[in-house]
Amino acid sequence: MTRIGIIGSGQLGWMMILEGKKLGDEYYVLGGDRSDPASRIADRHFPYEDYRKFVDECDLVTYEFEHVNAEALEYASSKDKLRPGIEPIRLKRDRSLEKEFLRSGNFPIPRYETAGSLPELARIRKEFGRCVIKTAAGGYDGKGQYFLKDGDPLPDGLPEQKYVVEEFVDYQHEASIIISRSTRGEISAHVPSYNLNLNGILINSFAPSEDNGMFEISRKLVQSLNYTGVMGIEFFIVDGKPFINEFAPRVHNTGHHTLMGSSISQFEQHVRAISGLPVGTPELLRPSGIVNIIGTELNNIKKISILKVGGTQIYWYGKSEVRRKRKMGHVNCISDSREGISVKLGQVMAIVYGNDLAKFI
Amino acid sequence: MTRIGIIGSGQLGWMMILEGKKLGDEYYVLGGDRSDPASRIADRHFPYEDYRKFVDECDLVTYEFEHVNAEALEYASSKDKLRPGIEPIRLKRDRSLEKEFLRSGNFPIPRYETAGSLPELARIRKEFGRCVIKTAAGGYDGKGQYFLKDGDPLPDGLPEQKYVVEEFVDYQHEASIIISRSTRGEISAHVPSYNLNLNGILINSFAPSEDNGMFEISRKLVQSLNYTGVMGIEFFIVDGKPFINEFAPRVHNTGHHTLMGSSISQFEQHVRAISGLPVGTPELLRPSGIVNIIGTELNNIKKISILKVGGTQIYWYGKSEVRRKRKMGHVNCISDSREGISVKLGQVMAIVYGNDLAKFI
Repeated sequence: MTRIGIIGSGQLGWMMILEGKKLGDEYYVLGGDRSDPASRIADRHFPYEDYRKFVDECDLVTYEFEHVNAEALEYASSKDKLRPGIEPIRLKRDRSLEKEFLRSGNFPIPRYETAGSLPELARIRKEFGRCVIKTAAGGYDGKGQYFLKDGDPLPDGLPEQKYVVEEFVDYQHEASIIISRSTRGEISAHVPSYNLNLNGILINSFAPSEDNGMFEISRKLVQSLNYTGVMGIEFFIVDGKPFINEFAPRVHNTGHHTLMGSSISQFEQHVRAISGLPVGTPELLRPSGIVNIIGTELNNIKKISILKVGGTQIYWYGKSEVRRKRKMGHVNCISDSREGISVKLGQVMAIVYGNDLAKFI
Repeated sequence: MTRIGIIGSGQLGWMMILEGKKLGDEYYVLGGDRSDPASRIADRHFPYEDYRKFVDECDLVTYEFEHVNAEALEYASSKDKLRPGIEPIRLKRDRSLEKEFLRSGNFPIPRYETAGSLPELARIRKEFGRCVIKTAAGGYDGKGQYFLKDGDPLPDGLPEQKYVVEEFVDYQHEASIIISRSTRGEISAHVPSYNLNLNGILINSFAPSEDNGMFEISRKLVQSLNYTGVMGIEFFIVDGKPFINEFAPRVHNTGHHTLMGSSISQFEQHVRAISGLPVGTPELLRPSGIVNIIGTELNNIKKISILKVGGTQIYWYGKSEVRRKRKMGHVNCISDSREGISVKLGQVMAIVYGNDLAKFI
């Protein structure tokens, strides 16, 4: 029996526990509220200030989110218990470091430049024309991102900080891969998915997508980081060629489809990878997809309608409050064909959002 | 959000919670120890003496085991919260009532007679020749069952109580079906499985097996009981014809294979059926089987060996103590073919039990 610590108390930790529990381990959760999704099913919950005790009592520590809890992450790392390690977190804390790491490793990424000040940002932005400006620190789910057309002025009121300016990529679609590397050195990946994002937030996704070379790039990435665990890597596909948008050193929203119709979920894969167990090669048993439920409740009529679609499952995270842009749950579906999945995703989208998607996101 | 009460704290309740939690409901567990499998992940645990409070605070109550907790079951029934209802429990408390119900409904069952006393038992037993004697009360997992060859004397020290004497059925194999009927009246079933029992305890099972008419019989059975929830029905297959051995008014060990390679597990199916949600028709995505881990620990070397087989998952129930005949966990496996499943079951059996199966069971 292993005591697995999770830093963070949200839905990713919740699903990690639901999926990992079968192996008989104990799960301790650090931070957030006792009523948060992961805390409620953990064997123990530690308030954030007790992070040393939490780390000391765990055999190994992982995290469901990399943008907070610096002291806890570093303390776990200093005790050699943190998996994945601290290096990918360091890169994710500053988007310019992530970009620099990828560029210096010759990974395919969109052209970018780092701006250390607002005047520098203004200068670089002009060179790029149509572009995306991203704050170097703390961006996720579309936060701190600004899409500018050629000639657009800089948004008003940008604070003085570090930014990354990226060329605008006119991609055919977004795709991602969930890759894992175990403590035993095994590397394998789930079948890649297509992703649909709106305002930087994932709306729905489905597998299989073509590989387009994503696996090889991803294999090289986890190896070069000496990485342990599951990593979600997002790509832009341009003329059939993949460019890394960003990576997430953890289980990832675009891997939720693996909860249904796969031989193993990304969550169990992660638990196995970090705890010294064989991970094997995940198999996609059926075309499979998800719809995120964002910014809205799910009343009983909607719940019933979704399950009536057939080959569907609902994950409702049990968060205390509905907020705009907040991920409240998701719906999994499987089908015999990719066409069938597209139809089901459309049906579920219509049930969840009606014609009002923009209202919730 | 529904508050679902489970009477009983063992592995069936544990898996019901792990599988049902995705829907966002709360689970309250009654009875047993706080450290029991289901209690440890429940939202709340009630000691048995608080059964009225437990029932009062739940929206609906189900059970993972039908042979105990009579007052709680009856109190939940009196409050109209018990699903499945009290009638199948009444039949299961006295095997002669179960048999009588099945015979009077013209369900195919082996020939049997009820003996109300030891002298009557001796007389009937002689008429039957080779037969099985079963205590009418409390028998499960092979307890209270005696296999007698023609001419064998009655076992020594049988207590004065009611018995059922059954003809010995020379079956080709045992099979079972997991059928469900929802509060909405939908009836559907998982693909049937082959089962291998030893001393009345399930060792392994796999799906698909041929239907052989089991679904129609099972459909009639749940309808005639006006049943709600999942029911496991065990059959003897003789010359391709099914005879009901017994039914279990709950999720069942022979349905554990549905945890992997199925579109929905029996546990989620049960939760949906009793809580007014659509159940749909379960689909078997791959041939799928389980090996029970009985009476033995699983050290790390065995754990790794099992997962290295590939297409395998381990459910370890986390019981406090290993005892002979005690179900400690199980292994799921999927494969592309029935032959592949047989090979994997054999590999897993060898890892778990070596040559010493009889020592543990």
